[in-house]
Amino acid sequence: MMVVMKSGSSSAEVQQVVNLIKSWGLDAHLSTGEERTVIGVVGDTRKVQRELFFHYSSIEQIVPISRPYKLASREFIPMNSTFPLDGFEVGGKGVFIVAGPCAVESRSQLLETAQAVLEAGAHALRGGAFKPRTSPYAFQGLREEGLEILAEARELTGLPVVTEVMSPEMVPLVAKYSDVLQIGARNMQNYSLLHAAGESQKPVLLKRGMSATIEELLMCAEYILSHGNRRVILCERGIRTYETATRNTTDINAIPVLKDLTHLPVIIDPSHSTGNWKYVAAIARAGVAAGADGMIVEVHPRPEEALSDGGQSLKPKHFAELVCQIRAIAEAVDRSIAPAKIEGCQ
Amino acid sequence: MMVVMKSGSSSAEVQQVVNLIKSWGLDAHLSTGEERTVIGVVGDTRKVQRELFFHYSSIEQIVPISRPYKLASREFIPMNSTFPLDGFEVGGKGVFIVAGPCAVESRSQLLETAQAVLEAGAHALRGGAFKPRTSPYAFQGLREEGLEILAEARELTGLPVVTEVMSPEMVPLVAKYSDVLQIGARNMQNYSLLHAAGESQKPVLLKRGMSATIEELLMCAEYILSHGNRRVILCERGIRTYETATRNTTDINAIPVLKDLTHLPVIIDPSHSTGNWKYVAAIARAGVAAGADGMIVEVHPRPEEALSDGGQSLKPKHFAELVCQIRAIAEAVDRSIAPAKIEGCQ
Amino acid sequence: MMVVMKSGSSSAEVQQVVNLIKSWGLDAHLSTGEERTVIGVVGDTRKVQRELFFHYSSIEQIVPISRPYKLASREFIPMNSTFPLDGFEVGGKGVFIVAGPCAVESRSQLLETAQAVLEAGAHALRGGAFKPRTSPYAFQGLREEGLEILAEARELTGLPVVTEVMSPEMVPLVAKYSDVLQIGARNMQNYSLLHAAGESQKPVLLKRGMSATIEELLMCAEYILSHGNRRVILCERGIRTYETATRNTTDINAIPVLKDLTHLPVIIDPSHSTGNWKYVAAIARAGVAAGADGMIVEVHPRPEEALSDGGQSLKPKHFAELVCQIRAIAEAVDRSIAPAKIEGCQ
Amino acid sequence: MMVVMKSGSSSAEVQQVVNLIKSWGLDAHLSTGEERTVIGVVGDTRKVQRELFFHYSSIEQIVPISRPYKLASREFIPMNSTFPLDGFEVGGKGVFIVAGPCAVESRSQLLETAQAVLEAGAHALRGGAFKPRTSPYAFQGLREEGLEILAEARELTGLPVVTEVMSPEMVPLVAKYSDVLQIGARNMQNYSLLHAAGESQKPVLLKRGMSATIEELLMCAEYILSHGNRRVILCERGIRTYETATRNTTDINAIPVLKDLTHLPVIIDPSHSTGNWKYVAAIARAGVAAGADGMIVEVHPRPEEALSDGGQSLKPKHFAELVCQIRAIAEAVDRSIAPAKIEGCQ
Repeated sequence: MMVVMKSGSSSAEVQQVVNLIKSWGLDAHLSTGEERTVIGVVGDTRKVQRELFFHYSSIEQIVPISRPYKLASREFIPMNSTFPLDGFEVGGKGVFIVAGPCAVESRSQLLETAQAVLEAGAHALRGGAFKPRTSPYAFQGLREEGLEILAEARELTGLPVVTEVMSPEMVPLVAKYSDVLQIGARNMQNYSLLHAAGESQKPVLLKRGMSATIEELLMCAEYILSHGNRRVILCERGIRTYETATRNTTDINAIPVLKDLTHLPVIIDPSHSTGNWKYVAAIARAGVAAGADGMIVEVHPRPEEALSDGGQSLKPKHFAELVCQIRAIAEAVDRSIAPAKIEGCQ
Repeated sequence: MMVVMKSGSSSAEVQQVVNLIKSWGLDAHLSTGEERTVIGVVGDTRKVQRELFFHYSSIEQIVPISRPYKLASREFIPMNSTFPLDGFEVGGKGVFIVAGPCAVESRSQLLETAQAVLEAGAHALRGGAFKPRTSPYAFQGLREEGLEILAEARELTGLPVVTEVMSPEMVPLVAKYSDVLQIGARNMQNYSLLHAAGESQKPVLLKRGMSATIEELLMCAEYILSHGNRRVILCERGIRTYETATRNTTDINAIPVLKDLTHLPVIIDPSHSTGNWKYVAAIARAGVAAGADGMIVEVHPRPEEALSDGGQSLKPKHFAELVCQIRAIAEAVDRSIAPAKIEGCQ
Repeated sequence: MMVVMKSGSSSAEVQQVVNLIKSWGLDAHLSTGEERTVIGVVGDTRKVQRELFFHYSSIEQIVPISRPYKLASREFIPMNSTFPLDGFEVGGKGVFIVAGPCAVESRSQLLETAQAVLEAGAHALRGGAFKPRTSPYAFQGLREEGLEILAEARELTGLPVVTEVMSPEMVPLVAKYSDVLQIGARNMQNYSLLHAAGESQKPVLLKRGMSATIEELLMCAEYILSHGNRRVILCERGIRTYETATRNTTDINAIPVLKDLTHLPVIIDPSHSTGNWKYVAAIARAGVAAGADGMIVEVHPRPEEALSDGGQSLKPKHFAELVCQIRAIAEAVDRSIAPAKIEGCQ
Repeated sequence: MMVVMKSGSSSAEVQQVVNLIKSWGLDAHLSTGEERTVIGVVGDTRKVQRELFFHYSSIEQIVPISRPYKLASREFIPMNSTFPLDGFEVGGKGVFIVAGPCAVESRSQLLETAQAVLEAGAHALRGGAFKPRTSPYAFQGLREEGLEILAEARELTGLPVVTEVMSPEMVPLVAKYSDVLQIGARNMQNYSLLHAAGESQKPVLLKRGMSATIEELLMCAEYILSHGNRRVILCERGIRTYETATRNTTDINAIPVLKDLTHLPVIIDPSHSTGNWKYVAAIARAGVAAGADGMIVEVHPRPEEALSDGGQSLKPKHFAELVCQIRAIAEAVDRSIAPAKIEGCQ
C-alpha cells in the first residue's frame, strides 16, 4: 500500500501519517519526489481500510499494491488447478460441456433432456430444483422433488449433476444429491452461503455476479478456498451494461484475464450471457476460442413450453450441432473435447 | 403484452402465434398496420415469459404493457403509505434520519455513538451486528453480542434500532432485538430472505442492489408485500457505473421516479452512495431536495479507527451540522424534520 | 508515477526498468518492501504511457500519482474562478439559470419563449441553431437563420445567449452571435473543436460526455484552458448507465466532486439528465442543494409541439415555479439567486 | 408505434390522444384490453418524438415498433453487402486482417511495420496521421506528413491503407491518400463528419462509440448510407462498463447481433477492446469464432517505444502467430482467410 501525500504537505503532516501506520503495527518507508511525498506501507496491509485516509486532508490518495486474494491467485499456485469429475478432468486440456434445462419442471421433461444431452455428447447435466426468480408470482422450482429427479437422471445416464443451492442451510441437502454445487449470480456475495460451500466436500461452480468485477469474483472464490474447499470452477455469465440488445453483455475479456490471474478452471455460460438462443452458439464458440475450459448451456426439448428461460434454451438438435462446433474450435486452439460417455459429433 | 410480428408475416404465421396465446388461456386481439401486424394479448400475462417468442422467427419483438408489480404500485395504492415508528411517522411530511456506525464494534463505541446521534437530533439508530464483507479476512461483526448491545442502546436512548439481517434463518433472532429489519444491497435478490422478511411482523428497510434497476427494486418489495408485510421502506444507496471518482453513483433520479411509481416511503443513503464522508452532506441535502422521505447515514466517534467503512463515516460534529442543513432543505421543499427525542439544530 | 514490480523480481529486472525510466530523462527512486519493490518515477511523467509497461513481464502494475490536468485543478488555482456575464457573476455566490428551448424552431417560438423565461427570472437564454440528432431523418436545426433569431431575442430581452457549436470551422460564426459557446456531450472529446474554442474569446459551456469520467471532463477543460481561454463552465448532464427508467442517470455526486477538484464553475442540466419534464424540478433542486453554481433547463411554450426534446421541456408556468423553488433551496444552502433582469418569484 | 393508455383512462382522454395522432397526418387504431387501451399509430412514425407523450398524463408509455434505421437493416437488404478492396472481398467468406501501428510516428517506423505485417499475411495497413488524444500534452500525430508516409507504404507493399479522419473539412485530404476512411469511436456521433463521409467515394470503417448502443451504431451507419455511400464496415472496439481489469469490455455479443440485424460487414478491434497486448490474440480468435468478417489490430516493431497505445500493440512476431491462429479458427467456422499479397502462416 502506498500513501500519496498532497503536494505541499508539511513534515508534521507526513509524520502524523507515519505514526498512524506504525500504530497498526506496520512499517512506513518514505520516498520524496519533486512534487510529492509517497509513503510505502510495509507489512500485511490486507486488513487496513484505504478509505480511512479520507479523514486526513494531507493525503491525496491511497494505492493498494498487494492483491486482496491469495489462495485464488496464480502467483500463489502457478499451475492450473484440475480435479476429476466422474470420468473427465475439470480444468484439463479437454473442454467439457454441462447441459440441461434451466429448471427441473417434471420427471419426464428432465429425463428426456438428460438422455438428449447425453447422446449429443454432454459431460454433465444441469437443472435447477431451487429457482431464484425476479417475480414472486413465477415458478419457484420443484425443490427436493427436483433433486430426486436429478438423482434419477444421473442413475440412468451416468452424467454427473450440477444444481444450484440458494442458502447455507440447504447445502447438506443439495450436496446429498448433486455432484457440483452451483452458486448463482445473485448469490455470489452471499457470504454465509460461500462459507457453507467452503466447508462442504463438493466442487463448487461459482457464477460471477451480474455487476461483479473480476477481482470481486476472485475474492468470493477466496472465501470458499479459505474454508477448505479447493475445487472451485469460475463461470462468466455476462454482466450488466447499458446495452439492451442482449439480456447481458458477455465479458469475453474476463476469460483470458481470469486465466492470467488465477489457477482455477474458468467456464462460460452463453445462455445467460446472451439471453437468446440465437446467439448462444456464437458466444459458446467465442468462449472456447478465448480460452475457456468448458461451458454450461441450457437445453430444453420444447423451449417454447419451458417454465423459465425458454427464450435462451437450445433445442436438442441445435445443441448437438453446437457440440460439433465446439470440437472444431477446441482443436483450432490445440485443445480437444473431454472424453464423454457418448462422444458427440461423430 | 403486445406481440409485434415481422413485416411480411403470413396469415398462417399470425395464426400460429394466436393459437399459442390461446393455449395459455389468454385472448388475442389483432391490429393490422401498414407494415406490421401487432397482436394484443389480453388477460393476466404476468406468468408469460416474453423470451419464449425468440423461438418464433415470425415475431419481431414482444412488448410488456402491465407493470410486473402490483402491490407496490401507486396505481394500486394512490396515497403514500405511512406507518408510525416509535414517535414519528415513516413516509409522512416529516423527514427522518437514521444514524449510527457501520458496524457495532464494542459496547462503548456503540453507546457513545448512540448518545451523540440522539443529541444531534437523529430519529433512529443504525449499526450492523452481522456484516457482509468482500474479504474473508475482514471483520465480520459481533453477531448476537452486537444485537444485545443495540438493544441496550435503545434502552438508554429511546431510539428505535435498524440493523441488517443476512439470512432467512436469522430473521427471528434479529427481529427479537431490532425495530426495523435491514436487507442489504447484496441481498436485495436473496428471495429466501425476502420471503422470511415478508412473514415477519417488523418493518423492512430494503436497499437497492448495486446494479438493480428501479423495477427490480420494486419487484423485491413486491416479494415482501405479497407475503403479508406492508411496512417496507425503499433505500437508494448508489449504483455501480463506470465512474470511479466515488465508490458508487447516487442515482438521484431514482428518488422522484420511485415517488412517482410507488406509494412506499423512499430514503437515501448518502454514505454508501458516495463512499466518502466529504460528499455525504451534499448528497444528503440533494436527496431531500429531490423528495426523499428520510436518510440513513453513517456516524462514528473516531472514523479513522473504525473497523469498517471508516472513510465514509461522519464525525458527530459534522453529523450535527448535517441535521441543521437537512432542516433548512426540508423547509425549502415545504416539509419539516420529523419530531425527535431531542430536537437537533436549535 | 509508481512502478510496482512483481514479487520475486530479480535485481536485473529492477535495473532494466530503472534504465528504461532514465532513458526518458526521468529519475527512479527505489523502495523495497517485504514482498515487492516499488519504483518511484520522479519528473514530468505526463507524457509517459502507463500501458507501455505491459510489455515488461516483471512489472505488476503502474500507478499514476500526478493528476493529468493542471490548469483546471484546484491545487493549481485554489479560489473559485468567476467571470461576469452581462449583469451577473458566473461562479459567484448567486445561482444562475439558463433557460430556453432545445432548438430554435421559428422566430415566433423563440421570441415567445425568451420573453417567458425573462419574465420568470432567467439569467440567460439557451436555444440550439445547429442540432446533433441521432437520426438523419430528424430536424437538424435552422443553422445561421437560427443564430440570427437568437441575436434578435437578445436584443429584445437583454438576456445573454448560449448556443451550441458543433465543428471547429463554425466557431467564428457562432461566436459572432452568441455570448457563450456550448460544446455538447457528443463533442466533449472533439479535440479540434476544443482547440478552436480555446482560441476564441467567448466563454465556453462544456457538457460532460455521455460516458465520460469526471477526470476526462477535466482533461477536456484543460484542452480549452491550455489554448488560452480561461472562461469555462462545466455541466453535468447525466451519464449512461444500465438504468432505463430515465433517459440518463444524473451523476449528482459529480457536483461536490467537481467543486472539490476544480476551481471552474459547475452547473447541472436536469432536462437531459432525466429526459422527462416530470422529474426536472426535483433534480434541479437536488443540483443546487449539492452545490451547483447554476443550471441550464429546457423550456418550450408548447412542449407537445416541439421539434426536439419536447418530452423533457417545461412549460413556462412550471419554469416559473421552478425559479421559486431554486430560490428557496439556494437560500437554504447560504446562497442566493443571481440578480436577474426581472426578478422571478416575487 | 403503440401508445399505451393508463388503466382507467376515460374515453375523452383516449380521444384527445387519437386527435393528436391524426394532427400529425397519421392514423390511430384502438385496441381495448381488460385493463388498458392501446392505440396503434399507423404511418411513417420516424419523425414522431416518443417523449412528447410525457405531457399527457393519461398515457402510460409509448412503444416504438419500426426500427429507426432502414438502409442498414437486413430486413431491407437480406444478403450480406460485400465490396472488393484491392484484391480481397470485404464482407465475403474470407476473413481479412488490417494491421499496423496506432500512429504513424516516422517514415522508418511505418515502413518497417508495413513490411512486417505484409510478410505475416495482413490484407491492409492501418496507421493514424491525425490522433485524438485525451491529453492536450500528448503526441497529436504527424498530420499530412503522416498521410504521405502511408501513401509511400502502400506504394512499397501494395497494401491498401486505412486511416482516421477527424473532421468534415479533412475528408477530401484524407480520401486523397487513404483507401478506407476510418471514423473513430469518439467521432461516431459527429454528424457533420458522417455527412461528409457519406458524400465521399471511399469505403468507411465506422467504429462503435465507447458507450453507443448497437442501435445507435446502426443509426450512424444510416447517416453515411443515406448520403449515398454504401460501403460501410462496422467495428466493435469495446464499450465502457464498470469493469476496470481491461481498458474496455469487448461486447462480443455485438458480433452475432449485428450480423443478425444488418447486411453490413462487421469486424473486431481486439487491441482497443482489451487495451493489453496479452489479451489481443484471445479476443481476436473469439471475434472470428463469433462470426466477425475481419479484424483491425495494432502492431508496432518496438511497442515499448511507441508514442501511443504501446501497451496494446503486438510485436510482429506475435502478430504472425495470431494470423496462424485466425486461419485455424476461420476454418473451424467454415470460413477461410481472405487471399493476401503474401499468405501468412505457411
